[in-house]
Formats: sequence, C-alpha cells, structure tokens
Amino acid sequence: MSSPRAIGIDIGGSRLRAALIDASGAILERRETMTLAQAGPAAVIAQAVELVSEIAPERDRANLAGAGIACPGPLDTERGLALGIPTLTGWSSIPIAEMIGTALRLPVRLENDGIAAAIGEWKFGAGRGLRHLAYITVSTGIGGGVVLDGRPLHGRMGMAGHVGHMTVQRDGALCPCGNRGCWEAYASGTAFGQRISQSTGSMAGGTPKSVFAAARLDNPDAKALVAEEADWLGIGIANLLHLYSPDCVVIGGGISNGFDLLFSGISARIRANAMPAFRDVPVVVAGLGENAGLIGAAAMLL
Amino acid sequence: MSSPRAIGIDIGGSRLRAALIDASGAILERRETMTLAQAGPAAVIAQAVELVSEIAPERDRANLAGAGIACPGPLDTERGLALGIPTLTGWSSIPIAEMIGTALRLPVRLENDGIAAAIGEWKFGAGRGLRHLAYITVSTGIGGGVVLDGRPLHGRMGMAGHVGHMTVQRDGALCPCGNRGCWEAYASGTAFGQRISQSTGSMAGGTPKSVFAAARLDNPDAKALVAEEADWLGIGIANLLHLYSPDCVVIGGGISNGFDLLFSGISARIRANAMPAFRDVPVVVAGLGENAGLIGAAAMLL
Repeated sequence: MSSPRAIGIDIGGSRLRAALIDASGAILERRETMTLAQAGPAAVIAQAVELVSEIAPERDRANLAGAGIACPGPLDTERGLALGIPTLTGWSSIPIAEMIGTALRLPVRLENDGIAAAIGEWKFGAGRGLRHLAYITVSTGIGGGVVLDGRPLHGRMGMAGHVGHMTVQRDGALCPCGNRGCWEAYASGTAFGQRISQSTGSMAGGTPKSVFAAARLDNPDAKALVAEEADWLGIGIANLLHLYSPDCVVIGGGISNGFDLLFSGISARIRANAMPAFRDVPVVVAGLGENAGLIGAAAMLL
Repeated sequence: MSSPRAIGIDIGGSRLRAALIDASGAILERRETMTLAQAGPAAVIAQAVELVSEIAPERDRANLAGAGIACPGPLDTERGLALGIPTLTGWSSIPIAEMIGTALRLPVRLENDGIAAAIGEWKFGAGRGLRHLAYITVSTGIGGGVVLDGRPLHGRMGMAGHVGHMTVQRDGALCPCGNRGCWEAYASGTAFGQRISQSTGSMAGGTPKSVFAAARLDNPDAKALVAEEADWLGIGIANLLHLYSPDCVVIGGGISNGFDLLFSGISARIRANAMPAFRDVPVVVAGLGENAGLIGAAAMLL
C-alpha cells in the first residue's frame, strides 16, 4: 500500500495547473498550461482533465483520494458552483465540481483559490503547526483565506476571506470590482504598478519588478514607491489582525517577491494602527509560492 | 431533575449584570448594579460574586452548569486573563476567570463581550438557527463577535472580531484606541454624537436620541445626520460581508434604537460597496438587547 495521494487543480485566469500530491504535501507530478480563458468552461475543464490524465492516467486513479479544485471566486463552494469568474469568459453558474468529478470519476472538492492557498500554507508552508493563520496573495488583485481555531473559514457559500474588497478609503480609488476605496485598489500589484507609471521621478515607466530591483540598489524614488506600497499593505494587514486575530499573517503572490523590502514599512504601519495586543503578530512570506493553491486543494482530500 | 441552568455575568464599564439562565435562554433571575469602575478588580469581582449570591445562593449551586463571564477586551480568553480594560481602572493581567471561579466554586468561562453577545444572538436572538452570523454592537464604541461555520470565532487569545478598529480611512479621525481612521472613530455612538454637536443646523447641541426623534418627525437636519451615520455603518458592514461572509449581520447597542431610520442608508451603502454575491445578506436589529452578552455568556456552559 502506498501512502494516500490526491490531485490538486488550480484554475487561474492565465495559468492552469494540476499536480499529484502526497500526504506530506510533496509534489510528485506537475503539469501547467495557458488557460484558454476566452474559450468557455467546457474547454477549460477539458484542459484540466487532460492535465490530470498526464499526471495520473485513468488506470492509476483507484488509489487516489480525489481531486481538489482551486478556482478564483466568487464561487458557491457549498454547491460546487462557479458563480462568475471575472478573469474567465462564460463562467456563470457553472457546476464545475460536478463536471470535473464526472470526467475524472473521482471525488472532488471545490475551494476558493485564496482559501485553498491558505490551507496549503497552513498544512505544509509558512503557517505549519499554527492554529490561526491569515493568508493573503498580492498580485493582480488581493485574495486571501483564513484558518481560525484550527479550521479553514468558509462562511456563507464558502465566500469568507474576500479581504481585497474591504474599504480602506471611503469613496476612494476605483477598484476592478466596481467599488471605490477597496484595499485591492491601493495595495495590489496593479495599483502599485499604476503608482509607478504615474510617478514623475526616475522610476516613471517602471514595473514593480524594476522598482524592487532599483530599491535594492538604494534608488530613492524606488524606495519611496516601495514605502508607499508597504504602508497600504500594512493598513489592510492591521485590519486583518483585529478582525481575525491570527497567530501569523502569510503573504504570497507576485508582490511578495519584494517582501524583504516591504517588511519594515508593513511593520511600521502595523505598530501605528494595531492595538497593543495585536502588534507582535508575525508577518512572513509564503513558503509554497505559486504552488500553495495546488497543494492546499489536494490537501483537502488527504 | 430540573433542566440545566447557568449563570451569566456581564462586566461593563458602567453596569455590572448577572443572571440565571435556563437552557432555552430565558432569564430566570437578574440583578444589575453600577460597576465600581474606579475601585479595581477585587472590588468589581466582589460585586459580581454578590450579585450571583442573590440570584443563586451557594446552597443552590450544585445544579448549575457554571458561570460565563462577558467582559470588554482586550482579554486573553485562552488563559482567562483581562489584559487591560480601558473603561475599568487597574485591570491589567488579572486572572479574572480563576478569581471568580474560586469565589463562586463553579466552572467558569471568560469571553470577550462582543463574542458573548454574538453567541447570545445566535443561540436565542436574531440569528437563531443560522450557521454564519456577524454581530456588531454600536454604542460608545463598536464591538462585535462572529459565528462562522456553526462555531464562534476566537482566534489568537480569543481576540477575533475587534471590528471597531479596522481602518476605513487612512490617517483619518482619531479613535479612542489612539489610532486614526478606525471604523469606531466614524460610526460609533460617540462619533455620531460628535457630528451632531458640531453640526450647524437645527440639531446642534442634540444627542443621537434627540436626532432619531427629530428624524422621525422629518426634520431635514436630523435626517442628514442619520444618513451620514448610516453611510459609515454601511461601509463597515460591507467590509464584514467580504471578510466573514455571514448569513446575516445583527446590530445591537444603543444606536440600534434608530435601526428603522438607519436601515435604508446602510442598505444603500452595502449595495454600492459589496460585490454582487454579498449584496443580499440581511442586516437586522438584535433580538436580545442589552441582555445578549449575559445570555450568551451563560449559553457557553449550557
């Protein structure tokens, strides 16, 4: 008897990934492709099934515990539905869990990608062994997931942890969600990139990546832009401390590549905004990188 | 054999309450007094023990399940400690659960008053039968508590749900906590009262109570002040929808006396700020009034 294994599937707006995971969270096999984002759900689900067939041919599936699917929200994970995925065309009220489960002939669980990544970091990453964990992913947008009292938080329709859309500025900057003043509208990689492109100093026309590189070489314009980004991140993270009271905040996503540069500014804002009892909660960088959702999705079945 | 009963104790900055509660949440006996807020923990604990003696004399305690204590934070409910209560003098690192348990010779549980009230509303009040509930109390400050996936959220040191201290305006109005821009600094009864006293129209010098009364008589200045308060409440409530994804938001505290007037403004702000999947979550007034904490504290032992 081999140890239990499960499939993780991570359906992203640009990349589609599948992996075979063992009970220690190790990736045994992994495939990745471009998501056919404009082709509709049937085509994307066929892609996912194809990737799974490569890493776990149908004749080898008897020993699998099942497949976990991480997907951008809003989902209704209680009913296994995609309610509408902004980055994918045509995903409105799609019974994605049932469609993939039927195609793979495996038990399937659907999870919001932020919650799946939080589970991955909690079980096998930077939050291992903790009872309380808030995970955020900062890239194009800001997503997240929370583990509290030793359990992932789900809430109504499994939609808890939409941290990017808390208002941090009344009637503030326009967010891709259509609202104004969301945390995502200030602290996401997209917002950071917009501040960079609108800046007038030596970093005008740069990107988050180039700003991080210049900040490491002590460019003052880059450092100021990083400080502003860190401050906005710190404002939202301080909110999460008060709202969830985690043992630790774990930051993933592309912007976490600059975590070493952002850390002091994030910490300064937390010291300013958090009540004393919340100030000493560590903020750390994610341990599983882009595989957190994939591993967490599989871990739900292990 | 009588049905199980428990004691609820609610230690507030101005009022101290104790009650004998049965398994249906009914209050069988109840006592209330002014808290000796300046006299230190030993005096207040003696007051609590005295109230309990009146409603459940020592000879009658054998059949009690225990006593639940609701107390303002910050507490460390995992260790039964008051870490420091702003409205009470001298409550720093006080082992309140042990002190009261020893005096009463009963099993004791300590709970943040916002979480206790959430439990009360969930078990016996406006949130009965729901799996997911966010409770807020809006009076001098803003407190809260959350039940998610059928369980009260605790987090590290039992401090989840400090909803009043999420930033809704970067570097905004000064909050009693010392930070700037907290929700409490805009939407609490205190903040509402300050806007009223600073207003220049016919309500200048009024109070939340007089403004609610005048708004019911269609006074336009009062209606504008109520609309502003409702808008700030709606901003924070929309945040709670995204963060926790409750089935329902329950509003208690003194300001909820104007709930009928505030409701349309709260709803309008939620429609503006919440993503579509969160917009239809009901917001309702609390069912247990000032007894929610008392009943919820006892319910933890039933």
